[in-house]
Amino acid sequence: MSDINMIRAAAQRLKGHARRTPLLSSPFLDEIAGRRVLVKPECLQHTGSFKYRGGRSAVSALDPAVREKGVLAFSSGNHAQGVALAAREFGVPAVIVMPNDAPALKIANTRALGAEVVLYDRPGGESREEVGEALRSKRGLTLIKPYDEPEVIAGQGTCGLEIAAQAAELGVTEADVLVCCGGGGLTSGIALALEAEAPGMRARPVEPEGFDDTARSLVSGRIERNAQGSGGICDAIVTPAPGQITFPIMQRLCGPGLVVSEDEALRAMALAWQRLKVVAEPGGAVALAAALFHGSQIEGDTVICTISGGNVDKAMFTRALDTLSD
Amino acid sequence: MSDINMIRAAAQRLKGHARRTPLLSSPFLDEIAGRRVLVKPECLQHTGSFKYRGGRSAVSALDPAVREKGVLAFSSGNHAQGVALAAREFGVPAVIVMPNDAPALKIANTRALGAEVVLYDRPGGESREEVGEALRSKRGLTLIKPYDEPEVIAGQGTCGLEIAAQAAELGVTEADVLVCCGGGGLTSGIALALEAEAPGMRARPVEPEGFDDTARSLVSGRIERNAQGSGGICDAIVTPAPGQITFPIMQRLCGPGLVVSEDEALRAMALAWQRLKVVAEPGGAVALAAALFHGSQIEGDTVICTISGGNVDKAMFTRALDTLSD
Repeated sequence: MSDINMIRAAAQRLKGHARRTPLLSSPFLDEIAGRRVLVKPECLQHTGSFKYRGGRSAVSALDPAVREKGVLAFSSGNHAQGVALAAREFGVPAVIVMPNDAPALKIANTRALGAEVVLYDRPGGESREEVGEALRSKRGLTLIKPYDEPEVIAGQGTCGLEIAAQAAELGVTEADVLVCCGGGGLTSGIALALEAEAPGMRARPVEPEGFDDTARSLVSGRIERNAQGSGGICDAIVTPAPGQITFPIMQRLCGPGLVVSEDEALRAMALAWQRLKVVAEPGGAVALAAALFHGSQIEGDTVICTISGGNVDKAMFTRALDTLSD
Repeated sequence: MSDINMIRAAAQRLKGHARRTPLLSSPFLDEIAGRRVLVKPECLQHTGSFKYRGGRSAVSALDPAVREKGVLAFSSGNHAQGVALAAREFGVPAVIVMPNDAPALKIANTRALGAEVVLYDRPGGESREEVGEALRSKRGLTLIKPYDEPEVIAGQGTCGLEIAAQAAELGVTEADVLVCCGGGGLTSGIALALEAEAPGMRARPVEPEGFDDTARSLVSGRIERNAQGSGGICDAIVTPAPGQITFPIMQRLCGPGLVVSEDEALRAMALAWQRLKVVAEPGGAVALAAALFHGSQIEGDTVICTISGGNVDKAMFTRALDTLSD
């Protein structure tokens, strides 16, 4: 199980590698939200999302003799890039299993980070698990899961250590900390870090409408699934259900989940561009959207939120900017 | 005259106020440039540009009895916002003299930062200096000039202290440091900081084509003027000529100037969006453009460049994104 000691150990291993992203703010956003808004822009992390933290944490925690054989990840997105960069930094192979209908740009970006991309025939019904398992057993690769993996959670938790320290520098010790939530790796990691370092703060998952599995699971007390396991413009943070490891942590430590619309996510992207000068992807903007547009469900004078990633294409970004009147 | 001691004193006064912006990088930019590229994104500074550093430095250096009467700035842009926010933080009046044909959004943003905006009739030929002087003498305001002002230069120099420290953490002690250059406040401040803290680095001004007054002045050894004092899409960093105070500093310390096209600035904006997830304005992107597209004029394995600001409207930003093929 992940705990604060694993997070602190991960922080030591990430030192000089993961970027300490700043804590941003704007009086214009404070005015919209009706309270002080502090934003942790993990879009500025290496590879454009917080996923590098977990990828580097997991790869660096491996026994060198095991690591040398290489690592494996299933992903068409941010997790793949985080694992690929971490593996390259250690000079070990990274094999990323991606669907053959993934966007060409995502495949190219993952290859450009030094990974070997193995495509499986998703439209044809091929199983990525079978393709991955065959590669794993043949080559002795280690699978790095995207969230239900203690060392990945520990890596994401380093973001929470930074939030606690940076908020304290600003005199903030009590706040709801809103986290863009898919499988719950970032949310549970931040929750564990805050429990130890900022007990006056509580992590709260934020999800897009239609994919609020974690919010519903926190209400019912057991793991609930989404009707659909993927889809929508916030796809980077959509998973079928919270994880077996992440959910008990969130259940113990997190406040109620928040749910935002896709339109709110797009408006938050535009405001992050206009007022913070950072690039958010739709899924990465849901926590800011909750901070700005769901204030009645938030407690305290200050709210802290993550921007979890910024890997977005031009067409989607232009769509977000079009929500601005000028 | 500005010197390293003034910069260090400014850094003390700015501590806990100015943001320590991170040093960003991307393997994709390194590949384009053919060397390692480190980017200091001052677009993430309060008010969206480095100008807050100089504004806060100057306002905080005033005698409290003088400061209480208020400060005055001429500007339709970034300097005004930096001074306005600094004045508001001290609870003193800021009067900003702006042309009555300035964009409504810029006027609104400056007012939203608590400043009193006084409009003068630029199309009708009214002199902003006369309007400002009348206000200054009547109300006892202190004029904060945008660059030819020792405490402003000292404030901008704090950016150079951070570059020296952050580059050293990455093991970089020798590099050309490319700086977006208008009147030379940021360039001369960074040059002074590097002289003391990173003597293996040299600052180099970067300007847009048609407004290369500083580059030409460094060649001729005396202050040269632009044919036009304003204009083009990089208007935020266009001035008629380098300053009386800034030029001798640049002459003593800076390497040769670099000049980029407007198209190169737009392409650099798009790459900053795509690869660094930050928002640059055209004038704020000229140094990155030089790093990426003028490598043959740069020395060393690593180049460092500033993104000086990110205050750009939607239409211009969309134009920049359109330079990307996907």
